[in-house]
Formats: sequence, C-alpha cells, structure tokens
Amino acid sequence: MVRRRKKASVKDVAALAGVSLGTVSNVVNSPEIVSADLRARVQDAIDKLGWIPNESARSLRVGHSRSIALVIMDISNPFFTDLVVGAEDALEDNGYTVQVGNSRNDERQERKHLGAFARQSLSGVLLSPIRGPSDAVTDLRLRGVPVVLLDRTGSQSEFCSVSVNDVEGGRMALAHLLEQGHRSIAVVGGPGELQQVSDRRQGAELAVSVYESASLLVMSTDQLDVSSGVRAAETIAVLPDGERPTAVFAVNDLLAIGLLQGFVTAGLRVPDDVAIVGYDDIEFAAAAAVPLSSVRQPRKALGRRAVELLFEEIRAGSLDETHEHVQLKFKPELVVRRSSAKRPFAAVR
Amino acid sequence: MVRRRKKASVKDVAALAGVSLGTVSNVVNSPEIVSADLRARVQDAIDKLGWIPNESARSLRVGHSRSIALVIMDISNPFFTDLVVGAEDALEDNGYTVQVGNSRNDERQERKHLGAFARQSLSGVLLSPIRGPSDAVTDLRLRGVPVVLLDRTGSQSEFCSVSVNDVEGGRMALAHLLEQGHRSIAVVGGPGELQQVSDRRQGAELAVSVYESASLLVMSTDQLDVSSGVRAAETIAVLPDGERPTAVFAVNDLLAIGLLQGFVTAGLRVPDDVAIVGYDDIEFAAAAAVPLSSVRQPRKALGRRAVELLFEEIRAGSLDETHEHVQLKFKPELVVRRSSAKRPFAAVR
Repeated sequence: MVRRRKKASVKDVAALAGVSLGTVSNVVNSPEIVSADLRARVQDAIDKLGWIPNESARSLRVGHSRSIALVIMDISNPFFTDLVVGAEDALEDNGYTVQVGNSRNDERQERKHLGAFARQSLSGVLLSPIRGPSDAVTDLRLRGVPVVLLDRTGSQSEFCSVSVNDVEGGRMALAHLLEQGHRSIAVVGGPGELQQVSDRRQGAELAVSVYESASLLVMSTDQLDVSSGVRAAETIAVLPDGERPTAVFAVNDLLAIGLLQGFVTAGLRVPDDVAIVGYDDIEFAAAAAVPLSSVRQPRKALGRRAVELLFEEIRAGSLDETHEHVQLKFKPELVVRRSSAKRPFAAVR
Repeated sequence: MVRRRKKASVKDVAALAGVSLGTVSNVVNSPEIVSADLRARVQDAIDKLGWIPNESARSLRVGHSRSIALVIMDISNPFFTDLVVGAEDALEDNGYTVQVGNSRNDERQERKHLGAFARQSLSGVLLSPIRGPSDAVTDLRLRGVPVVLLDRTGSQSEFCSVSVNDVEGGRMALAHLLEQGHRSIAVVGGPGELQQVSDRRQGAELAVSVYESASLLVMSTDQLDVSSGVRAAETIAVLPDGERPTAVFAVNDLLAIGLLQGFVTAGLRVPDDVAIVGYDDIEFAAAAAVPLSSVRQPRKALGRRAVELLFEEIRAGSLDETHEHVQLKFKPELVVRRSSAKRPFAAVR
C-alpha cells in the first residue's frame, strides 16, 4: 500500500503561510504589490510544499507560454503525423514544444481540443480543420491566439494557411490513368463534405470531362481508413467484368492500401485487373503488397511552413505590428509505381 | 492588410478597470475577498475586453483541468498512435481530452514535454518513457500529478504501469523461427539501452540457448524506423551465402518493413532466402509487400487500461484515499504470415 502524496494546492500554501488566497496570487502574479514580509512567508510556504505556480500564471508574467498546439484530423493517418514532425522540425531548439490534439474526424472532438488549448493560453494553434474554421476558432482569435490553417485554404484571406492544390492533384491522378488507356474509373473516398475529398473529386471530374468515352464512378466512404478501402474493394470486386472499373483513384493512401488488400483477397490482380492510384504518398505506400502510385504532398514542408507563418504572426502581435495573412499553396507531384503501371515493373520475386 | 487584434492581457483589464493587477487576480481566484463594487468594475472590464481567465486559474477553482497528457516515444510509429487511440477510447464522453507530446526518441524532448504539461496543471500524465522515469517524472509526482507508465514496467512498484511481456514476445518469435528449421538468425534493432529492445533480445537469446547448433547475430540500429531496417538489410544482403542468416527477427514492424524492402531490392527472396518476423503487428504489417509475421501487442487495450489506472489514481487522490499501484503485464501473441512461413502461403497473383 502506497499512500499517495496529495497535490499541494494554492489553498495549502495560503493555509501554511496564514494568508488569503488572494495574497498568494499576488505574490505569484504581482509581487511588487505585496509587502516584503508577506512575500517571504508565502515564498517559504511555496518552497516547503513544493507548489509551483502553473504555466498560465507564468505566462502572464513572461507574456507567453512555450507551447503551440497542432490539432489534426486523424492521428492514425501517417500523413498527419508527418505534419507534426515537420512542425517539430521547425521548432528545433527554440524551446517550444508541439502539443497534439487528435480530432478523430469528429467536429465535437475538434472543438473540445480547441477549447482546452485556448484555456491553456498556448502561444498559437495550427489547425487542420474537419470542415471550416468553426466558432471555436473564432473564439481563439478573439482572445488573440494566432491560428494558422494546415492542409486547408483559408477563406476570405482571414487566416494564414498552408495547403496543397488538391484539385490539381486529383486531375493529375486521373490524367495518368486516362493516358494508360483506362476509360471506366472509380474515385473512392468520403465523406464528400471534406474539402480535401471534394477538391480531389473535382479534379478527377475535370480530367475525365476531356475524354468523351470515359466515365467516372464516384464511391463515397464513411471514413478515410484502411478498412473502408477494403469494403469498397469488396463492392467493386463483385461487379461483373465489363461493368467493373479498370482503375481506381483513392483520395488517400490508407484507402488505397485497403483497396489493394480487398482486391487481392477477392482474386483480382493489381494492376492487371484493376489499377490503383492513391494520395499523400505516405511511407507505407511504397511498401505495400504492390507498391502504390500516389499523389505526393510535401507533408513535412507543410508542417514546417505552417509553423513559420504562425511565428511571424506571433511576432507581429507581440510587437503590435500589422500582419498580412498569407495563403501558401503547394503543388502536388505524381509518383508512379507498379499499382498503375501499364507494363508491369520488374516483378518482385 | 489586416490589423491584428492584440490579445487582451490581465494588464489591459487592470488598466481599464483602474485597479491593480492583484485585484484582477483576486476577482478571478478569490472573489469573496473583493468588494462588490470593485468586483463589478473588474468584471465589466473583463467582459469588454473579452479576456478569459486561463485554464490554470480555472483549474484552481474547479480542482482540475479537463485534459490528460500522453507522452509517446515516436509519433511516426503506428504502435504509439494506436496507444493514443486506445486512451481516447477510454475517455469517450467523460469530457476529457488527450494531449499528445512526441518525444522523437530524445530524452531532452521528453523532459520538455513533461515540463510543459506539468506547468499546465493537467489531471494526469501517461508516459511511454525512453529510458526510465526521469527527474521530470519525479517532479510531476511531487506536484501530485499522477503518472502511469505505458509500454514499460514500473520499477519498485512506485508506479502504475501497463506493459507487454517483451521477453516472452522475443522468445516466441525465435522459437517459431527455430521450429521452422532456421539455425542462423539475426536479431535487428536498437539502441540496446531501450528496455523494449533489450527485453526482446533477451527473449530471443533465451530461445536460441535451447538449441546447441543455433547462433544469434545481434545487429544494433540507431533508430527503430523503416530506413534503419533498409540499411540493416543492405548489410545482411552482402554477406556470402552460408554466412548470411536465413532468418531475421526485427524488434519492431517498422524495421521489418524496411528489412523487407531492402532484401527485395538486393534480390533476396522473402521468406525463401531470408525469413522475417516483426514486432507490434501494426496495421501495415499485414499490408506489406510480403505480409509480415509479427508479435502482436494489444495496442489499444494498453492505452485503454492505462487510462483506467490513471483515473483510479486521480480519484483516490481527490478523495484522499490510499492507492495501491498496479503493474499490468499483457501476454503477446505470435501472428504467422507469409514472411516466415516455411511453405509459401497461396501466392499473391
């Protein structure tokens, strides 16, 4: 049996020093207004109890805390953890830490994280929002906490943002499949309300519209994960030959990995029976059962540049300077691997 | 050009209300000691400026904040993000959020995170420590912040902890390879100071010691990532036939995925020329170029149980009850796939 040492509270400090709670607060926040005698008594009690004023009290004095927050949509998707690593790379050695909140593709969860981070008075927030900037974001900004949007274009120039041109990415994926001779193609992903999903679909439709003989089957999924990809493959696999699309564009690589697993299980060959192109080019895309073609996003650079924009905004705010919001848009890049190559690459033995 | 709204500070509130900083603090922390008139003036200024007392000030009043922290070794390893998801599952609907700190396999980074979380007065901390519980952990506990160790056995019953029997896991992996007839086996992973690495190696040595004719080559790596696995494969691949191990046990799946890539690139067949067994059984192990055998850890259950232990400790602390630390140790499970099967499984077409 271990007797747990109870956390020393400001009340304990006040009781031990024989002063009011307000006096303890004053010693921490504005010692200049407290008499030297009282100050010494309170300091003595603080030392004895090991009570340490919390970050927010400190940040009132030093002007800011030493952490920024990064709220991401899905921590199980390596695309987002690469954003985190990119953001951390940019903070290297400046003393800041990144605290990560996982929204689990759920807006309520996103709001809870933003609320918690707002109350902790962090220096700034990077947000990869599920829909648009919500009330919780407005609330953060009203409190003067800079917010930079990641993987999303800020609307109406109200935010700094860092994103990739997803319409162009979708267009590139489909243009490649069309060039390979595919005319019946499915685009798999959802929910369609996500801007990333609708942009990539829109790009796909754009590319297909150029070919009169080509058709695009839009298949929505509830989630953007591996098992949703497996289920989509099962649906596609049971279509009769001739009605089954000969190529699939997955709006992210987790879906593409799931589609590949599903097709192989159903006895379909990739790319011979069905070609696949994914999106993000996460590390595992190249290591999949059939190495996956993918639209590459510069993931770590996205995280790094978002932090740089955030710090410019923090700096401008602390100097009371004007700040112009910047919307950075990166270009995606198509990486072709065996999953969509017309002539099979050198076979893996 | 957008003029940034400056963050309202406690100073602004004091100036607008025409009171001292201490009075503002008192209104927030101990309104009962402030006159009604002053209180109204300060409240009015707070409302006008939109200043909201931060989390720590609130937590002084409500007794705790509504977040716990989870400090993990490597956010790029899906094993750890699965721990996060498991922890979040356990918090479902109780109003708490999990804030994640990524140590990047760097003890300084771990310490920075623990320090930042300590100052934010979170309700508790889950820690997957790089070495042992450091000074920063002791510091947290002295402040009364409960700490539960994850993926690590607590020493001397000082902590609640949740872990998997890694010695047994290493033994199982090697016993399987030995049963398949392998007698020259490499164990790949490092650095060796990590308890997980040394435990898994120890288990491997235990299994090999039973077979007089068997030998174990221990290969250390700097990191536990995919590219370290690729490099290890390059080193192994250039060994002449007869000296080259016929099987490799990778102490985690990222290494196993890298080894597989490296062997295939070097023209070696898996499992015919070299068999592979990994560890963790992350989702991507089953989806690798050759589906990987792996020692499964109950990742989400580890996260869930750690949260349950943390909340028992928080509850006991808040009720000033005694609390007995519990060390939970899960059993690992071997999942055999094509990468280590003597007779090839049905070939992927």
